[in-house]
Amino acid sequence: MAMASILAGLKPVIRELAAGETLFASGDATRGFFLVRRGQIRLARFSASGCETLLFVAGPGERFAEASLFVETYHCDARAVAESSVACFPKSAALALLEGDATARLELTADLARQVMELRSALTLRDVRSARERVLGYLVARTGVDGRTITIGGPLKDIAAMIGLAPEVLYRTLALLESERIIRRGNGIIELT
Amino acid sequence: MAMASILAGLKPVIRELAAGETLFASGDATRGFFLVRRGQIRLARFSASGCETLLFVAGPGERFAEASLFVETYHCDARAVAESSVACFPKSAALALLEGDATARLELTADLARQVMELRSALTLRDVRSARERVLGYLVARTGVDGRTITIGGPLKDIAAMIGLAPEVLYRTLALLESERIIRRGNGIIELT
Repeated sequence: MAMASILAGLKPVIRELAAGETLFASGDATRGFFLVRRGQIRLARFSASGCETLLFVAGPGERFAEASLFVETYHCDARAVAESSVACFPKSAALALLEGDATARLELTADLARQVMELRSALTLRDVRSARERVLGYLVARTGVDGRTITIGGPLKDIAAMIGLAPEVLYRTLALLESERIIRRGNGIIELT
Repeated sequence: MAMASILAGLKPVIRELAAGETLFASGDATRGFFLVRRGQIRLARFSASGCETLLFVAGPGERFAEASLFVETYHCDARAVAESSVACFPKSAALALLEGDATARLELTADLARQVMELRSALTLRDVRSARERVLGYLVARTGVDGRTITIGGPLKDIAAMIGLAPEVLYRTLALLESERIIRRGNGIIELT
C-alpha cells in the first residue's frame, strides 16, 4: 500500500465511536483525515431544507476526508453506522510531513491519482447493465502487467459494493465464470484464462 | 480551478488527433498527463484474451492520466473518439514543478483529493434508482457553504454523464423540479428553495 509510509510517519489518535455517534459535522473546523479500523463511517450531506445525500460509506482499511487537509471546515457529516474505531491523522502533522518529506508527498499524490483512476473506472462500469459483463469488466480493469492475473486484496463483498452488485450476485457470477473456464481462482488471485 | 496555476507553470505540447487515432497504448513508456481541448478521448483496457473494458471518456476541459506521473508505463489505451485536440503536459517538467513549487504541489494534491471525494459521491449516487432523487442528491452534494446554491461550471450534459442519466432525462427532471418550486434556476446557478 503506497500510503503505508505516510501513515507510519504520523501518530494517529484512536477514537472509539458508539453506533450513531457523530465524528464530525458539516461546518466543524477540519482536524485531519481518518482511517477506519473497525465498523463503518457514513459520510452524508444535508441541504438547507433537510434533504440528505449519502456521499460514501467507509469500511475497515478505508481512508476518508483527505480533502479536508486543504480546506478550513468539513463539508459533510461523518457518523458511525455501527460501533466503530477510527484512527485520526491530525491535519497540522500531516501537512508538515507533506511539506518536509518528498517521499511522503509523492506517495500521497500518487495514491490519490491512483484512486481517481480507479473511481473513474468504477463509475464507468456502473453503466454496464449485465452482472456478468460488469464483473468481467472489473477483472479486466484490475489485471496486472501480464494482462491476466488479478490480485484480490480484500473481502469479495467490498468488490461487490465497489461495482454496485449484491454480494450473492458477485459470488454466483464468479462461480459461473469459473464453471465456464473463463476464470481460474487461486489463493488470493483470479486469473483470466 | 485549483489546477490552473500548475497548468500555467507548464508548457504543454498540443497534439491534434484524427478520429480513431491512438494517443498512447498500454505498455508505452509514460510521457505525462493530458487535458482535452476539443473532442473526446476514450481510455480502455484489454485483457490478454481481447476482452475490452471502457475506463473513462475524457471530454473538453477534463484531465486524464495524472496517475501516469508516478508509474513507468501506461496501463490502458487512449484513443480519440472523434477528431480531438489535447494538451500534453510532459512528465519530467510536471514532476520538477511538483518538487520545486510548494504551491503547485499542494494544489495538485488538493485537486486530486477533491476529485476522489466527488467521484466517491458520484459512485454512491449511482445506486439511487429514481432520476428525481438522483438529481436532487447530486444538487445537495454540490451546494456551496450556504447549503442551497449550486454553481454550474460546465454544460448540463457533462452533469448528466457524471450521474449516469441521459441528457434529456436530466433536462426534464430539472424542468419538473423547477415547476414544483423545489429549485430556482439562475445564470450559471441552481438554488434549492
